[in-house]
Amino acid sequence: MRFEVLVLGNSSATPMYDRHPTSQVINFNEQLFMVDCGEGTQMQLYRYGIRSNKISHIFISHLHGDHYLGLIGLLSSMHLVGRKTDLHLYGPVGLDEILAVQFKYSDTQIRYNLIFHPTNPDQAEVLFESNSLKVSSFPLTHRIPCTGFRFDEAPRPRPLRIADAQRLKIPTAYYPLLKQGIDYTAPDGTIYQATDLTDPAPASRSYAFCSDTIRTPNYLPYVQDVDLMYHEATFLQELVSRAKETYHTTAQEAAEIAVETSAKKLLLGHYSARYKDLQPLLEEAQAIFPATELSQEGIWYLI
Amino acid sequence: MRFEVLVLGNSSATPMYDRHPTSQVINFNEQLFMVDCGEGTQMQLYRYGIRSNKISHIFISHLHGDHYLGLIGLLSSMHLVGRKTDLHLYGPVGLDEILAVQFKYSDTQIRYNLIFHPTNPDQAEVLFESNSLKVSSFPLTHRIPCTGFRFDEAPRPRPLRIADAQRLKIPTAYYPLLKQGIDYTAPDGTIYQATDLTDPAPASRSYAFCSDTIRTPNYLPYVQDVDLMYHEATFLQELVSRAKETYHTTAQEAAEIAVETSAKKLLLGHYSARYKDLQPLLEEAQAIFPATELSQEGIWYLI
Repeated sequence: MRFEVLVLGNSSATPMYDRHPTSQVINFNEQLFMVDCGEGTQMQLYRYGIRSNKISHIFISHLHGDHYLGLIGLLSSMHLVGRKTDLHLYGPVGLDEILAVQFKYSDTQIRYNLIFHPTNPDQAEVLFESNSLKVSSFPLTHRIPCTGFRFDEAPRPRPLRIADAQRLKIPTAYYPLLKQGIDYTAPDGTIYQATDLTDPAPASRSYAFCSDTIRTPNYLPYVQDVDLMYHEATFLQELVSRAKETYHTTAQEAAEIAVETSAKKLLLGHYSARYKDLQPLLEEAQAIFPATELSQEGIWYLI
Repeated sequence: MRFEVLVLGNSSATPMYDRHPTSQVINFNEQLFMVDCGEGTQMQLYRYGIRSNKISHIFISHLHGDHYLGLIGLLSSMHLVGRKTDLHLYGPVGLDEILAVQFKYSDTQIRYNLIFHPTNPDQAEVLFESNSLKVSSFPLTHRIPCTGFRFDEAPRPRPLRIADAQRLKIPTAYYPLLKQGIDYTAPDGTIYQATDLTDPAPASRSYAFCSDTIRTPNYLPYVQDVDLMYHEATFLQELVSRAKETYHTTAQEAAEIAVETSAKKLLLGHYSARYKDLQPLLEEAQAIFPATELSQEGIWYLI
């Protein structure tokens, strides 16, 4: 089952060098979720061949422009191309007011349901849950209220050994139950144990999005053990005091957080405009956490 | 003296094919003015090497997103890169409220003076006037209040025949007066006529920006005799009824307006996303007004 993240923007607030402000698309089994929506996101979606109408949920971390200014244009274009399906929008209180005033002056009545869910910047919350996926928010510490987001795949089915099940003449209707670990009792009373007929389930996958935040231990409990962590790395460690002043993180700090939370892989982003060459950020992080990559726009990363 | 317009965006509301929403920069003798500021304008400025801090005045035609959504990001970036000089912003009532709510939630106190001047959608007005340039707004007819803008160069100086002035021993301090057409009286009472010592002034140049509008005779008095007219041409004439419904113009109508107002040259733009190939729009307009060009992003057009 596909579980990947496409980075549409990896720049911090002043976009340069054809880097764009923050936005990502998460594809979970062909359902698309967006995280943040900086200016120009709709053009980035077009560039990378993503149909906006496949996006069902949008999560906005905070109300600095480089994380949401593309939202109103994207919502308007969804309207213009005839979207009919509901769109769920999660973000800080105030985002609704920002949208409302712009829809008012442009005299726009969008033709699909836009359902706004305010996020809580003070405590973790489950925002979305289906049979196969859960999305939660958790507090980050930035200059204004800000949350990160965590995507957790539900426990995955146990792969069935079909040849064995067929040989034992177990009705196919029971296969899904066996995959869930439920034993099968035959009409003659024989019990066939699910663990004997299935292999162990592959581990459930998880993704954490951490941008923007100062380094603090507060959010670490919410991002433990993820398969992929996206973490902002606005500065090099030599500018750690600048990072603290602006409530951002350095590449070294991001790597240390990945170590402390036992992440399997780390993806850096939210690069300051002062860095045209990003290699030093990568090297600084890899010295501490080797499984680090620089996020690049237009690339799908496996979770 | 330089007088040119750079097209940063020539797309209508749904940006596609690497076309961007409306924005233009007018360079008048190295003073930069911006007209409209669609989403992504700050990235377009960067792409074409324009320093945003050289822009002194921004004019917004109306509050549809494809004409102003890049403004808040541009204003924020000007703040982040340390702008100190005043910025004059002209646009419809409501633009100030849209900015204020976004600055409030992002907790931004910009460090330069942003001076907002509401435009009048009901009658023409002079918005800016210097010794050498005048900028006016005039009413257009769109779904929401909308104005066009006209840039008029002041009467230009008469080129001085310097060799003649030197031969007659006219003090150099009087040269600027002669260029303005003011005669010189020598200490002995001899009058030297400015017209004898100068050539006729070159014609003053003018530019009109007309987007978005339905075809109507109402604004034609305000755009007479310009050297360059930018006019929206959202549709081909075969979709004239769609143009009327959406309060837009066809390429043929734009050309007819150029004829009726005695424009010297016509530049088309605001192309619908339905046209990947723009040649038919050009051909339709040129059949009526041969001095038509398709505006292309990144090109400076002489006025």
